[in-house]
Amino acid sequence: MSDRTPSRTGHLLVSGCDVLRVPPRGECEILRAQDIVVADGVIEDVRPTGGPFGAGFAADVIDGRGLLAVPGLVNAHTHSPMVLMRGAAEDVTVEGWFNDRVWPMESNLTPADVRIGARLACAEMIRSGVTTFADHYFFPGQIAEAVTETGLRADIAPTYFSSRGTEALEDTVRFAEAWHGGADGRVTVSLGPHAPYTVDDGDLRTLAGHARRLGLRMHIHAAEHLEQTRSSLDRRGITPIRVLHETGVLEAGALIAHGCGIVEDDLPLLAEYAGTTAVACCPKVYLKHALSPLTPVRDLLGAGVTVAVGTDGAAGHNTLDVWEALRLVALTQKQAVRDATWMTVSDTLRLAVRGGARALGLQNEIGALEPGMRADIVLTDLSGTHCRPLHDPRAALVYSARASDVRTVVVDGRILMRDGRLLTVDEPALLAEADARVARILDTSHGRAVQHYDP
Amino acid sequence: MSDRTPSRTGHLLVSGCDVLRVPPRGECEILRAQDIVVADGVIEDVRPTGGPFGAGFAADVIDGRGLLAVPGLVNAHTHSPMVLMRGAAEDVTVEGWFNDRVWPMESNLTPADVRIGARLACAEMIRSGVTTFADHYFFPGQIAEAVTETGLRADIAPTYFSSRGTEALEDTVRFAEAWHGGADGRVTVSLGPHAPYTVDDGDLRTLAGHARRLGLRMHIHAAEHLEQTRSSLDRRGITPIRVLHETGVLEAGALIAHGCGIVEDDLPLLAEYAGTTAVACCPKVYLKHALSPLTPVRDLLGAGVTVAVGTDGAAGHNTLDVWEALRLVALTQKQAVRDATWMTVSDTLRLAVRGGARALGLQNEIGALEPGMRADIVLTDLSGTHCRPLHDPRAALVYSARASDVRTVVVDGRILMRDGRLLTVDEPALLAEADARVARILDTSHGRAVQHYDP
Repeated sequence: MSDRTPSRTGHLLVSGCDVLRVPPRGECEILRAQDIVVADGVIEDVRPTGGPFGAGFAADVIDGRGLLAVPGLVNAHTHSPMVLMRGAAEDVTVEGWFNDRVWPMESNLTPADVRIGARLACAEMIRSGVTTFADHYFFPGQIAEAVTETGLRADIAPTYFSSRGTEALEDTVRFAEAWHGGADGRVTVSLGPHAPYTVDDGDLRTLAGHARRLGLRMHIHAAEHLEQTRSSLDRRGITPIRVLHETGVLEAGALIAHGCGIVEDDLPLLAEYAGTTAVACCPKVYLKHALSPLTPVRDLLGAGVTVAVGTDGAAGHNTLDVWEALRLVALTQKQAVRDATWMTVSDTLRLAVRGGARALGLQNEIGALEPGMRADIVLTDLSGTHCRPLHDPRAALVYSARASDVRTVVVDGRILMRDGRLLTVDEPALLAEADARVARILDTSHGRAVQHYDP
Repeated sequence: MSDRTPSRTGHLLVSGCDVLRVPPRGECEILRAQDIVVADGVIEDVRPTGGPFGAGFAADVIDGRGLLAVPGLVNAHTHSPMVLMRGAAEDVTVEGWFNDRVWPMESNLTPADVRIGARLACAEMIRSGVTTFADHYFFPGQIAEAVTETGLRADIAPTYFSSRGTEALEDTVRFAEAWHGGADGRVTVSLGPHAPYTVDDGDLRTLAGHARRLGLRMHIHAAEHLEQTRSSLDRRGITPIRVLHETGVLEAGALIAHGCGIVEDDLPLLAEYAGTTAVACCPKVYLKHALSPLTPVRDLLGAGVTVAVGTDGAAGHNTLDVWEALRLVALTQKQAVRDATWMTVSDTLRLAVRGGARALGLQNEIGALEPGMRADIVLTDLSGTHCRPLHDPRAALVYSARASDVRTVVVDGRILMRDGRLLTVDEPALLAEADARVARILDTSHGRAVQHYDP
């Protein structure tokens, strides 16, 4: 796999850890006492610990004994800089959340704010074992710089509203041309029309055309909840998913955020594009916004559509904690279909890693700890009292573990956190910079907003 | 308040912390930079830091600067020793959970197992800031000993099935007589008939009579989900709640676990006993068991009934983490009534502390950090990246914080955990003892069970 030439990352050996094997289907397994051998950012081997190494083998060694290595989690839908507004929009309706709180606050954001917010989000995600995220936000170049510096992997979609005009649309395309494949391949770009209710069909078509031309995917909010679907049917006679079809968005390959309003009629349409369509499910925000029904995960999987796990932005989700999100996917999906035997521990873990990888078009690079995959490795410590006795580490990951059980995080073969210490972020300085921005960001007395919510 | 005589606990000063004030109604508040003065296990004063102390004042001082003091959380319904079965009954139906997994495993439990399980549970709860729990289990004396040793506060209900016979019933009464008010007042006892579907009306009447005679409350599972209510209506023409009324259980004062099957007709009946009735809501297990509807919290509060937050046993909930449970109460209740503005941050925090206190009949002793209350104090550290910027510490407690953000825990004026170190539990020895019991507890090849589930 590796050409063994010296490289930025060189060799890394995670020795003696247990490994979570997440197969494409069926039960996940725990491989006991393994060595994970990494060369040039790629997993070269996963094998029982203690095996021989060739002459001259030299590696940075992480002692993984007592730890469980899991594939890095994928946060399949977020707005990372919104950590700046965490906890500042509570106990409000969806309309109030957008029109009275978040969109007015967002009108205060400067590129420098986004720069700090994205770095803070990266720090939080590294700490919680998220190695890849699908972002959707303004000032995407700032986010790309944050990803470059912190060492994470991200797909970044520059948020576009038709109200911003043609030049803004062209800016998003220019960003894609500049950054797709950037940061040694850790940054990919999707085109990011906000939603069918904020982007007109012409712009959707134009962006879908650019996506096909450039070989990019699309990342878009659609059918976020049933009321939006009903509103679309009332206003124009078709569902938001059909809008995505008619404007070429599905053909380009789409990551759809939320999809709680996907209805039965949409399923055959989505099935046509199943190989390149994914839906990101972010249940905490659906519950918090009192939405029902939730993402129809069983129907989507039945139609062959990829489902992945996301947190949405922290102004709604309050954290970027994918452990929390995947647990809520399991819990809420069992309840939604009234079947406790469904959305099993293994299936939930698979959504969070393989599902997330596929949702970003990265299924051949990440989502499993197997030879040939990029080395995105999270070492978790399940020895805490809240996980003991540890009858089943897989169940512990889904139902007992916390983000704070993550000890060491490797992305692309590079150690970003070691034994709880961040290596690519000056956390105290960053937190101080974030705090200094708070008062200005929260001030909505100006009456401006980035957009008005009226789907 | 305090007589200042020397005592086991003496004076304790928590200096310079912020304090969460949880009023009986209205918004919670953050009091900045306070001293909490504790004497003989009681909060003597909460006042701005730096005030004068009388001559000769000497105290153990906890530096609370940078930390937020919250009232100790109350876990209003659990089966603490079931931590031994954590993660050993996943992805099964309710019937399968009881009949194939948990009740067969429970038939393996010895008093020594329960002793270890209860201690492990206490360790987990101390670590997560739970200072009081309402327990319901077999071998209650072992649990009482664990509470005594670890320093927690608990109301313990000895689980009783009619299938166990008269002598077992009398044992539970003898336990109550021996332990109510024990451990320097930290142990109270409730009588614990398991449920109306496992305890016959005669036994319910007998136990309710004992409860009235001894001044005890009752702790019982009832109307756990709607199917149980329907089954009760089919089999005997009345709801489980009406059974509690007719057998004198409500008159004695009842803590009802779950109550997801409480129907509209039950509300006037519950309202009659509102002053002494409480329902413990444990949403994680309802979701995991694919139940719907959930505890009708809005209706219950509307009827004047106390609602509290619980985890149920860890064989279903996987943790004894009341932070997780209270967050899920907020999220699921918003969704259940389709109102995002309801079950606010302040109301949720109130349920978890004042609601819990009242559910155990301890509303005059715990549930708030106010002069005259027992000193059950939890110091939380909200400085972590996942809570920043900290726009609103109350929102952070409900939606961002984790059990691992708890730093120091005081119960009855005694420090049980200091800066993350448990002072009353030898955790490594305890974990090793628990691990040694696992294989035997999980073996269900014998075909025995403590009971058969057929409500």
